[in-house]
Amino acid sequence: MTFGFQLHQGTVNGPRLGTLTTPHGAVSTPTFMPVATRGMLRGPWPDRLRPMGVEMMLANSFHLFARPGVESIEAMGGLHKMMAWDGPVLTDSGGFQAFSLASISKLNDDGWKIAHPVHGAMVDWTPKMAFEVQASLRPDVAMILDECPAEPRDRTKVAAAVKRTLRWAKMQRDMHDARGGVDSGQAQFGIVQGGVFEDLRQECARELSAMEFDGYAIGGVSVGEGHDAMMDGVRHSTSDLPKEKARYLMGVGTPLDLVESVARGIDMFDCVYPTRCGRYGTFLSDEGNQHIHNARFKNDPLPLLPGCTCDACATGVPRGALRAGLKEREMLPASLLAHHNLHYLVNLMKQMRSAIADGSFEDLRARINAVYRPPKP
Amino acid sequence: MTFGFQLHQGTVNGPRLGTLTTPHGAVSTPTFMPVATRGMLRGPWPDRLRPMGVEMMLANSFHLFARPGVESIEAMGGLHKMMAWDGPVLTDSGGFQAFSLASISKLNDDGWKIAHPVHGAMVDWTPKMAFEVQASLRPDVAMILDECPAEPRDRTKVAAAVKRTLRWAKMQRDMHDARGGVDSGQAQFGIVQGGVFEDLRQECARELSAMEFDGYAIGGVSVGEGHDAMMDGVRHSTSDLPKEKARYLMGVGTPLDLVESVARGIDMFDCVYPTRCGRYGTFLSDEGNQHIHNARFKNDPLPLLPGCTCDACATGVPRGALRAGLKEREMLPASLLAHHNLHYLVNLMKQMRSAIADGSFEDLRARINAVYRPPKP
Repeated sequence: MTFGFQLHQGTVNGPRLGTLTTPHGAVSTPTFMPVATRGMLRGPWPDRLRPMGVEMMLANSFHLFARPGVESIEAMGGLHKMMAWDGPVLTDSGGFQAFSLASISKLNDDGWKIAHPVHGAMVDWTPKMAFEVQASLRPDVAMILDECPAEPRDRTKVAAAVKRTLRWAKMQRDMHDARGGVDSGQAQFGIVQGGVFEDLRQECARELSAMEFDGYAIGGVSVGEGHDAMMDGVRHSTSDLPKEKARYLMGVGTPLDLVESVARGIDMFDCVYPTRCGRYGTFLSDEGNQHIHNARFKNDPLPLLPGCTCDACATGVPRGALRAGLKEREMLPASLLAHHNLHYLVNLMKQMRSAIADGSFEDLRARINAVYRPPKP
Repeated sequence: MTFGFQLHQGTVNGPRLGTLTTPHGAVSTPTFMPVATRGMLRGPWPDRLRPMGVEMMLANSFHLFARPGVESIEAMGGLHKMMAWDGPVLTDSGGFQAFSLASISKLNDDGWKIAHPVHGAMVDWTPKMAFEVQASLRPDVAMILDECPAEPRDRTKVAAAVKRTLRWAKMQRDMHDARGGVDSGQAQFGIVQGGVFEDLRQECARELSAMEFDGYAIGGVSVGEGHDAMMDGVRHSTSDLPKEKARYLMGVGTPLDLVESVARGIDMFDCVYPTRCGRYGTFLSDEGNQHIHNARFKNDPLPLLPGCTCDACATGVPRGALRAGLKEREMLPASLLAHHNLHYLVNLMKQMRSAIADGSFEDLRARINAVYRPPKP
């Protein structure tokens, strides 16, 4: 058995403790996967990830297909070698990229026509291609190509997206079976769509469950619907998923989104949030998001977050220097802030796992809510 | 005694081995100082510098004066704290910046009027300001403000620059004395100008030597005159400098410039070359400069430089991944290449010191020349 998920503690709708077993090692869940879209993180070096507590990484099959290409990655010794990361990797299918690049992509029942990110010509990106590219990239977990509807509140469009996602899911599920399922060295996750509609999400989850994927993701969230609607989407998606499989909430998140999703039974996350907001000067702290551009940091001799054990804070570079450097578009502050933020989230996941184990999760949840929940309007 | 220079081996005109003693520790010479213009390197993190072999760093007093400002740096606990570097620091005086920003600066006998890099208004930058800003920043070595002539082959202009440089040097030397000389906790280096003219460089070196600076720099080189003319400038400058003081060649260099300058009795160097050329995809190797954009690296599974012991090569990120990432303007390749190049030069200095000690310097020099000297036209 090269892939599996053991649930140690927890229920369908409550916080869960588990272990994801993969060909490249075990992952303690709930876990946060840093996003190396093109095979590399924006800031943190690969050699700092293990010591930081990262256990699994994400890359994007569509972007890697576009550059450097499957052939090139195979010549380099495969995706893990390219990423200089010997732990588990999950690749996204490009469904979200087709959505986020909607202005330069066209959807039909067979897949997407999408502008190639490197040379700009329209290329096909189909369920078969997403499957085959991922089969060649050999991540530990491959995602099915889905349709992430552009308007999660338009019932007609969302229903069509669910229908297409299910049809494509079945095609890819069959391809996975034909390759030997997890014995191919790769697990395959289905993706629940359904926008803001409870019944559509439930239907999608039920249909996917019937196909018996190796794990399940929740897609089409964190697309601007707001925290509360996102949490509804999570609840509507998980209620009909099997308890004993891993659940992965895609593209999430912030400390608040993470703790509230864990509270609702999510096991896996990914998001560019920590590295992206670091590049723009935001850093995470136990007092909430802080912005290094704030004038009060101008003369500040303290490291980014006093007491933080991350490598970035341990350098001792003062906030005042990071603020001045970021204004001058220096590389170091972006890199240090991204590193700190990633460490902060990875460490938050570790805290959540401890808290679930010792029964104090609700305390941690309350603390994160007190700091990170935006005040009611 | 807080500052000193001991020459262990070598002559005025040949390779030298020495130790620079500073309030923040000792430095083995010949040495290469990485350039943290605004208090931070472009790429390498401060915590990777000591293990890499860096012993002394350079920052720029004019840029730091402009942002974040002396008051802010003092509030952060001083320049060393700001740089998160507890070793020796040398600050440049801004003379070269006035030269390189010539289109937005104006020179008169009292100093420069120069456009402030942050808000753009014309501000004064005088010998007194350069002295006082550096006295406040408290580097281990401060440089005098000099005039770097824009046209090193225009004898009239160069002679005027030498005259002005000497007059300013005397003013700043007196200020240094009034502060207690090296007992102030800071050494002061004079800067030899004189363009391509042997007699002017010799005159400048003699006059500065008579002022008894704590060390001497050679400025106005590496401004486009070519390697051979630069080496002539070095020779013309060093011949009249005292043997027992450190000699620092400013803004150099490349492996060839470094080894040839060491061969002519230079003890200290600084240059943005390793980090800057890394950002643009050039990496140093025992086979000469290589360019990661070269198509032959597209599928290359090897690390940047196989066998290299630097942290960047040790990550194992393959050349193919670095090439693809740099094309996508990812941060990681720029950071890894900059780190590798800096390590390469710091390690080359270490090799030179060993070779001087064991009598094999000419072999090393020949090897670097064979690889790095451009073919004769």
